[in-house]
Amino acid sequence: MTQTSQELRSTITADGMLRLHLEQVELSDPGPGQLLVRIEAAPVNPSDLGLLFGPADMDTLTLDDGGSGLSARVSDAGLAAVRARIGQSLPVGNEAAGTVVAAGPDQAHLIGRRVAMIGGAMYAEFRLIGIDACIVLPEGAKAADGASLFVNPLTALGFVETMRAEGHSAIVHAPAASNLGQMLVRICQEDGIPLVNIVRSTAQTDLLRGIGATHIVDSSADSFTADLEQAIEATGATLAFDAIGGGEMTSQILNAMEAVAARKMEGYDRYGSATLKQAYIYGALDTRPSILRRGFGFTWSIGGWLLFNFLRSIDADTQKRMRARVADGMTTTFASHYTATVSLPDLLTTDIARACTKKATGQKYLIVP
Amino acid sequence: MTQTSQELRSTITADGMLRLHLEQVELSDPGPGQLLVRIEAAPVNPSDLGLLFGPADMDTLTLDDGGSGLSARVSDAGLAAVRARIGQSLPVGNEAAGTVVAAGPDQAHLIGRRVAMIGGAMYAEFRLIGIDACIVLPEGAKAADGASLFVNPLTALGFVETMRAEGHSAIVHAPAASNLGQMLVRICQEDGIPLVNIVRSTAQTDLLRGIGATHIVDSSADSFTADLEQAIEATGATLAFDAIGGGEMTSQILNAMEAVAARKMEGYDRYGSATLKQAYIYGALDTRPSILRRGFGFTWSIGGWLLFNFLRSIDADTQKRMRARVADGMTTTFASHYTATVSLPDLLTTDIARACTKKATGQKYLIVP
Repeated sequence: MTQTSQELRSTITADGMLRLHLEQVELSDPGPGQLLVRIEAAPVNPSDLGLLFGPADMDTLTLDDGGSGLSARVSDAGLAAVRARIGQSLPVGNEAAGTVVAAGPDQAHLIGRRVAMIGGAMYAEFRLIGIDACIVLPEGAKAADGASLFVNPLTALGFVETMRAEGHSAIVHAPAASNLGQMLVRICQEDGIPLVNIVRSTAQTDLLRGIGATHIVDSSADSFTADLEQAIEATGATLAFDAIGGGEMTSQILNAMEAVAARKMEGYDRYGSATLKQAYIYGALDTRPSILRRGFGFTWSIGGWLLFNFLRSIDADTQKRMRARVADGMTTTFASHYTATVSLPDLLTTDIARACTKKATGQKYLIVP
Repeated sequence: MTQTSQELRSTITADGMLRLHLEQVELSDPGPGQLLVRIEAAPVNPSDLGLLFGPADMDTLTLDDGGSGLSARVSDAGLAAVRARIGQSLPVGNEAAGTVVAAGPDQAHLIGRRVAMIGGAMYAEFRLIGIDACIVLPEGAKAADGASLFVNPLTALGFVETMRAEGHSAIVHAPAASNLGQMLVRICQEDGIPLVNIVRSTAQTDLLRGIGATHIVDSSADSFTADLEQAIEATGATLAFDAIGGGEMTSQILNAMEAVAARKMEGYDRYGSATLKQAYIYGALDTRPSILRRGFGFTWSIGGWLLFNFLRSIDADTQKRMRARVADGMTTTFASHYTATVSLPDLLTTDIARACTKKATGQKYLIVP
């Protein structure tokens, strides 16, 4: 017996067109360790947008004849960047929550329970998934509460784990007013970790002040550099996580860390301070090149940070501890907020698709297939 | 009893002037573990130029009245970058070789021997130094042979140690035709390590071909990107050392590594390959910002690499093994070549000072105080 499911697919063709459509797939019966889940809520995360829309020019987005899908143009430069996916019909959606409708013989007790899931292909009606990629939600949990329990919560907790593993004692985060940023504020409050929050407006400053953040620095202020140095000095932060990626943010953070470290140096050293300054780029909200003005000596490192790499790097006990904390804090520490709820067919309309691609902080859509 | 010594000093004043002059200093008698060395040869390394000339505009270089020193203007932007050294009279010169003229009671057997030294303040007549910062040269060794036995040899060997410690199996190096680059070619030949040499001209290609380098890629060629990818594919290099720093070289290397890794991927992954691509920036031949075009996914790291940090990170046995190898290969693997020999007073003339600042590959001056 199989289960028929509608699944959102993204395809980029060799002639430079992105196409989004719903594909009917057949899911086999769950085997041992597997669940068949009816998807009830899936967020549109910034980390989903790259696969969903690729480098398509959203101004060229049009409804296909018959309304069966959307198409948009991809520039030649954009096409070169995604040559590895050309012609492939790719399922989309990193995470979701839903109800178990069938299960392998060893998981039959979970039928009827709600679970949170990670693993791709979540913008669909059903998902066949291994139990290892699920968190079983408490009885009575709403689908919306469980939809975003993997990507943002584990990323925010991953920052703290990374901080501890690498011997730092405070964190700089940009942009800090995102759903993830707000989670990080709450985690750091609970754990007593000094956190420097970089935001882009006074409204965002107010938002974070409202949830109890202490060190908030507005990058749109003239005093940004001085404010950042002051916050870094106050917290002792030598580690940063930056989802902006493009432009000068990472460089500004490292230079501010170096300026603070230099004040404590006894003599001049043309190679800079011996304080290790570490930044991780974990997103690409700004897809322009990163500009590094290397005024921060020679004791620094910038790396990519990817949740999936991080999860592979930690042991099973740490994984379990992190997931338990996420389930416990589902409606508090790790609560997400959504701008609007849309159906899968809704997503295949030009207005809603375009709205989803606006990477505005605080804007987040929830798909209810 | 003390020893009088003329020592080259570099000072930047608050009103934006760089001044170079000779200062007379008194060195105390060597204590236990110390040597007093008459300096006979000291190289002008790229790593010395930052301290020596700072961000001064060399076009404004003039001889002081009476010929006692040189002065040059520092721009306001340049001044901001070196505010930590303003007003300090700083000794210059990372390494040198010379003859031991006096020694602490436990080191008396070394009087009359030639040593190579590291530790700064080497552009001088004499240097009081700890035995730990010296390599005792074989009997009959020339001063010129021992002058450059620390910075370049230990840096080149440090690249190989770093490669092994971090689990890589090949190296990309830019710019590869330097004295250091040639050493690295010879080390990698001896150790059987695949090395991708990035050069900037056909003349440099010929030079490296002449000493037996296999993979040479010319960044001035139209086919640079394709050539680099081919060499990276052939060697399996996932580690790079780049002394250029500014511009796009580091980014180009990482993108080439990613292109090679992507060819081996089974399916498309919008986060890029899971191959860790590591680049170290160990110099600043190009002081412009580094531009990162992040087409290399999320599994990457770029860091500063500094000899002094590296030496602090390794154990005593590794230090000893590296120094013994350098002494053994003084006139072969680790031989340096100099454009010209100049005295300390020569260095305080506008023509020679300007010539020293030209960071042209293959140009290297030896100071004979």
